[in-house]
Amino acid sequence: MRAVQRFLTLLALLAVGGCATVARDPLPSWNEGKSKQAIVAFVDKVTAPGSPQYVRPAERIATFDNDGTLWAEQPMYTQLAFAIDRVKALAPQHPEWRTTEPFASLLANDIKRALAKSEKAILEVMMASHAGMTTAEFEATVSDWIARARDPRFKQPYTSMVYQPMLELGAYLRANDFKVFIVSGGGIEFMRPWTEKVYGIPPEQVVGSSLKTKFEMRDGKPVLMRLPEINFIDDGPGKPVGIYRQIGRRPIAAFGNSDGDLQMLQWTTTGSGARFGLVVHHTDAAREWAYDRKASFGTLDQALDEAQAKGWTVVDMKSDWKTIYPQ
Amino acid sequence: MRAVQRFLTLLALLAVGGCATVARDPLPSWNEGKSKQAIVAFVDKVTAPGSPQYVRPAERIATFDNDGTLWAEQPMYTQLAFAIDRVKALAPQHPEWRTTEPFASLLANDIKRALAKSEKAILEVMMASHAGMTTAEFEATVSDWIARARDPRFKQPYTSMVYQPMLELGAYLRANDFKVFIVSGGGIEFMRPWTEKVYGIPPEQVVGSSLKTKFEMRDGKPVLMRLPEINFIDDGPGKPVGIYRQIGRRPIAAFGNSDGDLQMLQWTTTGSGARFGLVVHHTDAAREWAYDRKASFGTLDQALDEAQAKGWTVVDMKSDWKTIYPQ
Repeated sequence: MRAVQRFLTLLALLAVGGCATVARDPLPSWNEGKSKQAIVAFVDKVTAPGSPQYVRPAERIATFDNDGTLWAEQPMYTQLAFAIDRVKALAPQHPEWRTTEPFASLLANDIKRALAKSEKAILEVMMASHAGMTTAEFEATVSDWIARARDPRFKQPYTSMVYQPMLELGAYLRANDFKVFIVSGGGIEFMRPWTEKVYGIPPEQVVGSSLKTKFEMRDGKPVLMRLPEINFIDDGPGKPVGIYRQIGRRPIAAFGNSDGDLQMLQWTTTGSGARFGLVVHHTDAAREWAYDRKASFGTLDQALDEAQAKGWTVVDMKSDWKTIYPQ
Repeated sequence: MRAVQRFLTLLALLAVGGCATVARDPLPSWNEGKSKQAIVAFVDKVTAPGSPQYVRPAERIATFDNDGTLWAEQPMYTQLAFAIDRVKALAPQHPEWRTTEPFASLLANDIKRALAKSEKAILEVMMASHAGMTTAEFEATVSDWIARARDPRFKQPYTSMVYQPMLELGAYLRANDFKVFIVSGGGIEFMRPWTEKVYGIPPEQVVGSSLKTKFEMRDGKPVLMRLPEINFIDDGPGKPVGIYRQIGRRPIAAFGNSDGDLQMLQWTTTGSGARFGLVVHHTDAAREWAYDRKASFGTLDQALDEAQAKGWTVVDMKSDWKTIYPQ
């Protein structure tokens, strides 16, 4: 349908404008500069018929990290904020949490103390808040929370803390017959309820971490129960594994912002033919956040060095982006 | 692009034919009867604008089992024939197989004896033939084998042993803006190298069983190694789990042929709104095979009872299909 609409729009433009040049900028929130030029040059060379580096539409796979690449990940991952809110909401049913860590500290709003101790603490919080219900129940909980919760600094819904330049980039790639996927370390079921509306990316094009689920009959109706057991961690070396498992094709373009995206960028950019790797560097403390090598969430260290060494595009958020969030 | 082409075709037809009725049968290999009527009635009611059971295109998800639903699964699963051929090809590098079961019996062409003993034997054969190489090496091996191997009864390439009526059904659904997935108990990596060419189903729309893979650097290049360890069995109660994991939407139509498809059919047909379940019943010993409750591969017992009880469409291959294989 979208292609037909585009075709009709084109017809209308031709009818009205005769030979007028249609030169609408597909990336209006990107300042002119090396990053924007590199993106456009790549898309041109893989889509122009007769280009020596032409790629047929079916193989135009692009993968985007989510946290820090499509939306903000500071002061903590949004999914962690969700987990903490869920622990608080579920606390009345768990009196034992008042005296058990990490829950006691969380309920006392001492998040740093609760989560500083170990990965195990974070895992316990995730399991307590993400498992033990059907998939439908969990989806409803996520949808409800994401509609109501607000970012602590900007006081906006988290789905407004998405990057306008990246929305334009996704739309630009789709308009050029790319199939755009999210490949995130975050929970696949935490993203799917809203990615289609917010990013235009449907659930079947979301790859992420997951818990195990189990098919069961409940009152004669089939349900999928969420188990408190990790199924897959789609981060770092897990990203190429997740891409291979779910997409089954090697992307020709990958977009990330942290060391968790390094292997996805390596895997994508070392395939044959034209390849594109991009790293969003958070350099804008005033409009968003500035962080890289020493960050607690979204550390960008090794991948920044490798981007520079390999010639991947490094977006300087402060100078490359005219606007950060949608108006 | 496809939508534009369809639109242009329509324009051309209108220009040439004026008001001529375009009444091409989308399912020419299906005999007129209840099965064909049920399919067309379902597609009409979910696609007609203004229909009370209208489903928007994004949610028109259809899932097809592969073995016995899209292609033949007798006298044994094609993937098992592949595994046995691989064991024979690899035998010179494994002198110990000459005296170790199940390999010794396999190499002596006593397949029944080799595999009759236990599931463990089948698993050992699968691991020996499917793991221990990169994903790219495995894909090349599958592509080479599928191009050369022949079905033992009809002496045709396995990719010619696909069901013409089901190819038409897939194309008919896609023409009605369905997104068509394979959801198979077979290995995802065994199917992906050829499903796009044979069925028009791209790799990212194939769900199946899988081994674990591991990201590694080899001579400075990233590879994915196939490990001799099961990642996921996409069969029976695993099918709704695999669908949820990879597609993230509940299908509105599911197509199967065996008890391994029962839970996928239950999961699909108990959602809200219009739903469609179909079971291919193999009733044609002359043109294909006749088997159901007692079959070693593709047992259809409980799902046949449930299809009858729940009103799912049961295709009688002998009477419903004009032709079985593509000409």
